[in-house]
Amino acid sequence: MAEQTPLLTDLYELSMLDAYAAHGMADTAVFELFVRKLPPGRGFLMAAGLEQAVQFLETMRFTPDDMAWLRGSQQFSPAFLDQLSGLRFTGDVDAMPEGTVFFPDEPLLRVTAPLPEAQFVESRLINLLHFQTVIASKAARMVLAAPGKELVDFGLRRAHGAEAGLLAARASYLAGFSGTATVQAGRDFGIPIVGTMAHSFVQAHDDEATAFEHFAQVRPRALTLLIDTYDTERGAAIVAALAPRLAARGITIRAVRLDSGDLAAHARKVRAILDAAGLQAIRVFASGGLDENSLLALCRDGAPIDGFGVGTSLTTSSDAPALDCAYKLQEYAGRPRRKRSEGKATWPGRKQVYRRHDAAGAIAGDTVALLGEPVDGEALLRPVLRAGKRVDGFPGLIEARAHAAASLALLPAPLRRLEPGQVTVTISESIRRLAADMDRRP
Amino acid sequence: MAEQTPLLTDLYELSMLDAYAAHGMADTAVFELFVRKLPPGRGFLMAAGLEQAVQFLETMRFTPDDMAWLRGSQQFSPAFLDQLSGLRFTGDVDAMPEGTVFFPDEPLLRVTAPLPEAQFVESRLINLLHFQTVIASKAARMVLAAPGKELVDFGLRRAHGAEAGLLAARASYLAGFSGTATVQAGRDFGIPIVGTMAHSFVQAHDDEATAFEHFAQVRPRALTLLIDTYDTERGAAIVAALAPRLAARGITIRAVRLDSGDLAAHARKVRAILDAAGLQAIRVFASGGLDENSLLALCRDGAPIDGFGVGTSLTTSSDAPALDCAYKLQEYAGRPRRKRSEGKATWPGRKQVYRRHDAAGAIAGDTVALLGEPVDGEALLRPVLRAGKRVDGFPGLIEARAHAAASLALLPAPLRRLEPGQVTVTISESIRRLAADMDRRP
Repeated sequence: MAEQTPLLTDLYELSMLDAYAAHGMADTAVFELFVRKLPPGRGFLMAAGLEQAVQFLETMRFTPDDMAWLRGSQQFSPAFLDQLSGLRFTGDVDAMPEGTVFFPDEPLLRVTAPLPEAQFVESRLINLLHFQTVIASKAARMVLAAPGKELVDFGLRRAHGAEAGLLAARASYLAGFSGTATVQAGRDFGIPIVGTMAHSFVQAHDDEATAFEHFAQVRPRALTLLIDTYDTERGAAIVAALAPRLAARGITIRAVRLDSGDLAAHARKVRAILDAAGLQAIRVFASGGLDENSLLALCRDGAPIDGFGVGTSLTTSSDAPALDCAYKLQEYAGRPRRKRSEGKATWPGRKQVYRRHDAAGAIAGDTVALLGEPVDGEALLRPVLRAGKRVDGFPGLIEARAHAAASLALLPAPLRRLEPGQVTVTISESIRRLAADMDRRP
Repeated sequence: MAEQTPLLTDLYELSMLDAYAAHGMADTAVFELFVRKLPPGRGFLMAAGLEQAVQFLETMRFTPDDMAWLRGSQQFSPAFLDQLSGLRFTGDVDAMPEGTVFFPDEPLLRVTAPLPEAQFVESRLINLLHFQTVIASKAARMVLAAPGKELVDFGLRRAHGAEAGLLAARASYLAGFSGTATVQAGRDFGIPIVGTMAHSFVQAHDDEATAFEHFAQVRPRALTLLIDTYDTERGAAIVAALAPRLAARGITIRAVRLDSGDLAAHARKVRAILDAAGLQAIRVFASGGLDENSLLALCRDGAPIDGFGVGTSLTTSSDAPALDCAYKLQEYAGRPRRKRSEGKATWPGRKQVYRRHDAAGAIAGDTVALLGEPVDGEALLRPVLRAGKRVDGFPGLIEARAHAAASLALLPAPLRRLEPGQVTVTISESIRRLAADMDRRP
């Protein structure tokens, strides 16, 4: 079921290609992907998913099975299907590198390709870029909320399917998480994998101390014990009693995990119990319904918690599971194009985003301008594909992660504190003039 | 990246299995999957995803590549990995059939298997059942909100990845949608696929009328024209002028699509324009940021709209992208087990759900009881797997869809109207007594 096929698309992409083929419409089209507005309460977004988007563009192929199914569907002309079977992406892509922070109305990706190619890739391109951007943007808020803390993705089970679980691990690591519990993400992306134990492990044993000892034996180097199955402080006391016995066998308890109740209050009591037993080195790790707001509160409150496992709110981006993004035709056959639908009008033309920094290096404002328009600032869209081939120097995940950290550091201070605030995005006069000119035409 | 591998799991599942193996813990375990509470504003949930969950259990295998990677990770003992490589699911599963409506605290699935098997499948089992249940529950609300209307899933692009897009198409069809735009879902699940055209198609042409004619030529039997790219009523007028010309060529316009602005107001104007041209047979189809609340409002308002395309709110379940669900150990080695964590305590023991109906057939209330406890009502959990093999008569998607429709018809009237309301779920006295007995033990 989950193999990659170009049939993972909307039917209308194929219908439109059929019509483009029938009328020989294959001139160069320019599409841009952008977000119309920020989700409520958000101050910035973080671009992610470009690696998977590029892989999709590089490898997109209809297999003979795909073509046989399309023929059998009787929805398309045979001549068109013959043409479709050879479809490849041969165009250019320019995009913000993964980890770049961005704002509404800014194209984060521009596709320049023959119309059928640029059109066809729409559905999956959005599907890939939207999701990781959603997750990286959410994860970045958690990273800012809990500076210096270890943050781990625990969210596979409630992520929306297999790919969501995997790519959420990637996008959160990119944004600054330390690791993930998802084993396959360790294998596929080289992300550090981290794990503790479940309540069922404790429950399957007749007593908690035995459960802890049994687990210690198989995790001697990375031992985290879950202590809230019955009573958190009693669990901490059991750990305190067990630690010297384990130490005698060369096993160090790295951390305890709290997963329920008032985490700050429990953390304080647990910290005191461990400290009183001379176990200052055992870290306190917390999980259970956390999001960036609770992380912010726990950290401001000075709760003695060293790391957090974040699940559902991260991998579903629970407050904003989707962004109002669009992939729109801005130019075809050398002429700018503009959609004027109520509330959804687009800015026409091929565009670039220029970023200005203040004296301290923080982001001072962005300008969206026509490509080639002389505007000060750092150009954010960089070449990614040329004639369907990846350009040299495409950043890997580690590089993207460093870029994300650098990007977050340059956010204006209120945005870094997750306070409401806004970076001004200016639409250049040339774009506005072009749009007005087009609107005057019938 | 997207092949199915048992490495799509949480690291702790493997660590726990390592410990279970080291201590010979392989007695029969009983886990149950349930939802702790309804999302705000919701009155019911709909079970979905069992087909994919069962496929996962039936086919779960570590490949030699998986094992090589695990060996290389140096996280597990070689003896354990030898044992793991042969892991199969050999247990029993009982579950609510897909399409069953259910309520908090009710197990929708029970796994009875040797502890390592029952434990290991946790992460992916939740991942599969949770997601489709989220989507079917959301889609069911839309189906109830828009009785008699054609509802189509348009949400691939903002679904969370490939699997989410595909399975959202499946879950929404199961809940009563008419079809999906996602081509692969047509191929994989036999769901009717439906499509219109994008704004870019209109924009790529120099005028709207030419775009419509070009599209008509390739969709002569299922033609829907998108009329809001520049001005909705002008688009309708163009359609009215075009229809006789197309009719002369044997092409019938099936529908027009509105995608922006005040949909009710535009629909009325468009309907009037079409009717005045004698085009009563052309249907009006609407899309653009719809959810069950806007469907309810449009339908109550009598807006002349025949069908709706629903995207983001459906495939991300935007108001409730996750459910507070859990897969918990309720019995091991013949003894009931209970987690007592604050706010997350579970009801111990192997359970069944019994449903009572009133004289009119509507759901009157459910009782969760211990398996074998004599309770009136229809038992909702049915045998699914026995010794790892699917029992005869497992319902297919069409059958599940019929069951969903029947289930929705039996909801109490306020829930069918999406009003707040509650079906009472009674936890049997025997379960409460068992829990109390267990809590008295140290």
